[in-house]
Amino acid sequence: MLTLQALATRLGGVHHGPPDLALRDVQPVDSAEAQHLTFVNDARHLELLASSRAGAVLCREGDDVGDRPAIRVANPRLAAAEALRLFHPRAAAIAGVHETASVARGAFVPASAEIGPFAVVEQGARVGERTILGAHVVVGRGCRVGDDTHLYPRVVLYPGVTVGARCDIHVGVVIGSPGFGVEMGPEGPVEFMQRGTVTLGDEVRVGANTTIDRATFGATRLGDGVQIDNLVQVGHNVTIGDGVIICALAGIGGGATFEDRSVLGPQGALAPDATLGAGTILGARGALQSHGRLDDPGQVYMGTPPIPLADWRRWVVLRRRLKRGKKDL
Amino acid sequence: MLTLQALATRLGGVHHGPPDLALRDVQPVDSAEAQHLTFVNDARHLELLASSRAGAVLCREGDDVGDRPAIRVANPRLAAAEALRLFHPRAAAIAGVHETASVARGAFVPASAEIGPFAVVEQGARVGERTILGAHVVVGRGCRVGDDTHLYPRVVLYPGVTVGARCDIHVGVVIGSPGFGVEMGPEGPVEFMQRGTVTLGDEVRVGANTTIDRATFGATRLGDGVQIDNLVQVGHNVTIGDGVIICALAGIGGGATFEDRSVLGPQGALAPDATLGAGTILGARGALQSHGRLDDPGQVYMGTPPIPLADWRRWVVLRRRLKRGKKDL
Amino acid sequence: MLTLQALATRLGGVHHGPPDLALRDVQPVDSAEAQHLTFVNDARHLELLASSRAGAVLCREGDDVGDRPAIRVANPRLAAAEALRLFHPRAAAIAGVHETASVARGAFVPASAEIGPFAVVEQGARVGERTILGAHVVVGRGCRVGDDTHLYPRVVLYPGVTVGARCDIHVGVVIGSPGFGVEMGPEGPVEFMQRGTVTLGDEVRVGANTTIDRATFGATRLGDGVQIDNLVQVGHNVTIGDGVIICALAGIGGGATFEDRSVLGPQGALAPDATLGAGTILGARGALQSHGRLDDPGQVYMGTPPIPLADWRRWVVLRRRLKRGKKDL
Repeated sequence: MLTLQALATRLGGVHHGPPDLALRDVQPVDSAEAQHLTFVNDARHLELLASSRAGAVLCREGDDVGDRPAIRVANPRLAAAEALRLFHPRAAAIAGVHETASVARGAFVPASAEIGPFAVVEQGARVGERTILGAHVVVGRGCRVGDDTHLYPRVVLYPGVTVGARCDIHVGVVIGSPGFGVEMGPEGPVEFMQRGTVTLGDEVRVGANTTIDRATFGATRLGDGVQIDNLVQVGHNVTIGDGVIICALAGIGGGATFEDRSVLGPQGALAPDATLGAGTILGARGALQSHGRLDDPGQVYMGTPPIPLADWRRWVVLRRRLKRGKKDL
Repeated sequence: MLTLQALATRLGGVHHGPPDLALRDVQPVDSAEAQHLTFVNDARHLELLASSRAGAVLCREGDDVGDRPAIRVANPRLAAAEALRLFHPRAAAIAGVHETASVARGAFVPASAEIGPFAVVEQGARVGERTILGAHVVVGRGCRVGDDTHLYPRVVLYPGVTVGARCDIHVGVVIGSPGFGVEMGPEGPVEFMQRGTVTLGDEVRVGANTTIDRATFGATRLGDGVQIDNLVQVGHNVTIGDGVIICALAGIGGGATFEDRSVLGPQGALAPDATLGAGTILGARGALQSHGRLDDPGQVYMGTPPIPLADWRRWVVLRRRLKRGKKDL
Repeated sequence: MLTLQALATRLGGVHHGPPDLALRDVQPVDSAEAQHLTFVNDARHLELLASSRAGAVLCREGDDVGDRPAIRVANPRLAAAEALRLFHPRAAAIAGVHETASVARGAFVPASAEIGPFAVVEQGARVGERTILGAHVVVGRGCRVGDDTHLYPRVVLYPGVTVGARCDIHVGVVIGSPGFGVEMGPEGPVEFMQRGTVTLGDEVRVGANTTIDRATFGATRLGDGVQIDNLVQVGHNVTIGDGVIICALAGIGGGATFEDRSVLGPQGALAPDATLGAGTILGARGALQSHGRLDDPGQVYMGTPPIPLADWRRWVVLRRRLKRGKKDL
């Protein structure tokens, strides 16, 4: 339970209505009840709000919400995301090692950590305070996992990987698999052994069944607050800055770089050694060519090679005309 | 063993030849033996049939199969699929909980279910009658799994997920992972907590290592008879109607809808909130843009944005001419 | 430790400098120390070499490396890959079955094999000499795994699959999942049962979370020395020749063929029954259409349908002009 006033303070907004109004969760406008805080993000939401039973609403300065209790903020959806975190703190570890787990003698697991059924912690690995390892997790030899991190069921860390604090690594993620380095020899392909490692910063989120390869030499590096969706492939020696967002099924080639807060859309790609500049957005299916650089903070690019969104839209219209057989472009 | 007559009855076809001819499996035309039923689907098959040793053949009215015993049907390949199911019924559960499995005290597992080695069933979960959980499966807190369903090895259901009856969920599938909702805040991306769930209908088939995300609020919903291939990403709040087919490596954005019996090709995509209409087919690599709608039952579309197959073919020819530097289109 | 002379002999090169110079690893030019062999592959490497502390260098005939001890070879990067293998032989199995592993009575596991924690070997399966099964591996009924092969944690082989000798199958790989065969019936899609299997040759490398489907009838076949990256989908009845390379997130349709030493780039595709000819390279995102054939040894193709790289580059320029609204092509 949080009061309207307490929420306004925590969310950096201004409240209107009874300061001690008690709220206990966030719900969308069409399913919220009297005990819920809701949020309006666009005209459709505002329309639905009229008939909503929500006890209070997150809205923008100037939104007409009648006399319903409200908290006015700059970005209602962002405020709702933050309110959800206040109502639902991270799951706390239930300290202890499950009787079926296999922890090597030379591994370090603190008393505050939770080690799930059939989890494996190999020799020389260190698990952080209050960290949770789900069922069937494997933490390889010599790995380091930070405090308050959650490895969901069947995450596998190959030997020598480092994961920061307060990370969420979802089911089936593989970190530290060997990068794909192949040299074509006279008798066929020869693997180039991958001797490096992977390092993740703090508060990194990695989606289900994503794979992150170790470096050939040195390290594949992810900064703090990186958000990665499901089924993404991150190649060897990739560098990912702070607050970068990578959507599902994207493929990142060896040696590519994401500068801070850049964004790559679903099924997108950075070819080997490409660089996506700080704050630049490469949309769905966009692919940046090998050694290419795209650096345009806040702008959205589309296509292969990428072009600005406005050009892309013109191109789509043009293609439609072309296919109709019109010669006059 | 099934007789020619029994097969004809079950497959809704007309038999020619000895009604009590005993057959014991389906084999393709080039490897079938006297005890096998084969099927001819095109001219090449018919040609191969001449030298085939098959005991009997599934064919269309009008196909010249000489005096070989035959069952004439509307769609021989569909009839072969159905015949295979008659010869090879679903594997029956070998009732019992493996001695290494970990079933929580508050979980419900009926005596008829088969729980494999190192499987984990968490508190409050319910497993259906005769349902099979393979090795290393994890059924999260409060999940519901229907009767006669098969979760293959290392499927993971996050807490609160519902799976229907007679489903086949293949190795490595993840259901109920949090949707990818990120709001960009002044200090970097903030995750929008995913409070919803996932519900699967009956007779759903999900391919290996596919991931299906829970809804932000409410539920990601799959209807009955849905067929999903390997390595597909299904986002939060997606709605998938009955009998929908989704091929490998496709990516489905948040809030997208598949109406009944629509089809999405390999590496295809539905962007967030797009709708693929009932019976509409979006081919390989096709991508439907955000909030887009494609509704043309039985028709095949290609490309991004999608255009009808005939137009696509013209476009491919046009591009070939363009690249040759011909100015006259 | 290996001497300069021994290395030159093993790598088929000519050494310059003290024959008994002892070296103990390979490192890139910017981090190599006195005890390391490094390699120079291009002008940038040669420049960095001047200030490198490397004890010796792999270079081409004619490269100016001053008086630094050197081994001159045709392809320095290939030689470095081979040198790494000399310094770091494959991990040897630590013979024995982990006390938590579950080996069926009718399975064959030789005394020289290493079976990891919570691994499952089902009835009738045979594991090779000195083969390693990582944690949570499942080897299904009747599978055959060759000698000196390494199945990394949580690899799953469905029943009846054959894997050759000296293979590396990485974390989360699924082999033998049913192919995606669906016939549309009057009441919705009907699965076409997949009765075949999968056969892998020797020295095959499969990347993390990749899926390889069994054949409808017969076998999905991979030859010797095949190199597959992460998150690749290989469909039913695919044939992959010797020394083929397939990059991440590629999708291979049913019945497609890779002839020897062909290469498919990341996010690429072969549609059903397509054939990529011996030594032909289909680049990133390239897709070969159904029943298509591309046969041009040593040449690189791009796009969908694929066109030669030179044409592709012209096309990219053309598109840029088109989008600028220039009518004069």
